[in-house]
Amino acid sequence: MNIILFEPDETGRPLSRRDERTAHLLKVLRKKPGDTFDAGILGGPVGTGRIEALRLDGSLTYTLDLRGAPPERTPIRAGVGFPRPIQLRRLLRDLSSLGLEAVDLLGSDLGEKSYRDTKLLSGGGARAALIEGAAQARDTALPELRLFPDLDRWIEARPWQREGRSPLLIAADNVRPEGTFAHLGPRRGPMVLAVGSERGWSDRERDLLERAGFTRLSLGKRALRTETACVAAAVLAMEKIGALE
Amino acid sequence: MNIILFEPDETGRPLSRRDERTAHLLKVLRKKPGDTFDAGILGGPVGTGRIEALRLDGSLTYTLDLRGAPPERTPIRAGVGFPRPIQLRRLLRDLSSLGLEAVDLLGSDLGEKSYRDTKLLSGGGARAALIEGAAQARDTALPELRLFPDLDRWIEARPWQREGRSPLLIAADNVRPEGTFAHLGPRRGPMVLAVGSERGWSDRERDLLERAGFTRLSLGKRALRTETACVAAAVLAMEKIGALE
Repeated sequence: MNIILFEPDETGRPLSRRDERTAHLLKVLRKKPGDTFDAGILGGPVGTGRIEALRLDGSLTYTLDLRGAPPERTPIRAGVGFPRPIQLRRLLRDLSSLGLEAVDLLGSDLGEKSYRDTKLLSGGGARAALIEGAAQARDTALPELRLFPDLDRWIEARPWQREGRSPLLIAADNVRPEGTFAHLGPRRGPMVLAVGSERGWSDRERDLLERAGFTRLSLGKRALRTETACVAAAVLAMEKIGALE
Repeated sequence: MNIILFEPDETGRPLSRRDERTAHLLKVLRKKPGDTFDAGILGGPVGTGRIEALRLDGSLTYTLDLRGAPPERTPIRAGVGFPRPIQLRRLLRDLSSLGLEAVDLLGSDLGEKSYRDTKLLSGGGARAALIEGAAQARDTALPELRLFPDLDRWIEARPWQREGRSPLLIAADNVRPEGTFAHLGPRRGPMVLAVGSERGWSDRERDLLERAGFTRLSLGKRALRTETACVAAAVLAMEKIGALE
């Protein structure tokens, strides 16, 4: 937690004793009344918070002075085959810390159907993971998060389509690649990254991707966990569009 | 676990009922006597195993036919500031799955001293994490793992030095970078990557690195977890040396 993030509607209300942000401020950062800390409003500005008082019930009052801009968004949308639930949380956190514009979770032909039945998404855990990633990167913006039952529906919906914008469409594919990320070379502008489940894409999905305009690029010969493959693909793409400068 | 890995001295002995490989073969992969599976010997070849019998005590006998070569090693050595213990396991697993030649864990000026007192290293957990990463990538080789109390001792020891080999020395540094990974361009040959603790390098460490011939490259403006930063730096370096093809 490199920045304490607040929901827009909770600022001004004291932080309860049980709030993990209270614990972080008092126990990890060892802050006392009068001390300042890095703060931000989700979807809003960043700046400085100040602890005003510790109240008898263990809650904490604070004031905020937020006038800075958060880091720039990374103009990358990732469509990711549902990973194991235990990986999903870390995946969302990591892709959020990289500032991705959107993460679409996709059912896939070779993915485990059961992975989709995760409570992380309905129970608020997914949003908590996205917030954790943003707090790591001192960001206030979260990736848009959407679910699609399969690749077909994702490609039909084309959530990346927007007036006057033609993102480069890339699918990670170690089995039948057409090239490598190194062949991309530097470019500006948005990118869409499709990363399959750990078992990769079916040939049916490869056809769908090809007809939708995706180029298949290899991440090497090693089988990586979905989470690692996503971070790898995102970082390679970020480098190409100058988002790592 | 994409491949079942055996220690050189245990082949031939039955796998006990409680061994996680037994559970993986029987419960996750649903293998039965007569079925084959991907197998390898740590530090040796890869090939096919065959379940011969399930014994009354729940253990499993098998035969191995191993004649293949594991994937090529990635000629990268990483020197990494000690992360939080909870991250260390995942870091070792991920860097092992990327096939790195060596991982050196370094005390650093801005790292938490307490992180070094981890039982993961003495208790066999570190080796288990390296094996888990190798099994993910269908590899049989593990990165060499060494500990150094500080950057000074690492640079003094120059564990990367070997007759006739001059690796490119790169330090990840988002605070005072001299360039970005994009400026590296494609090259062949080995690389050494120094990645600090999450709080980065002290100026004293920057001087040490500079005098030892390290170039400081940025991974962007976002503060990443040590684990994510290491995977990012490793993948960017792997791309440059053609290890992702």
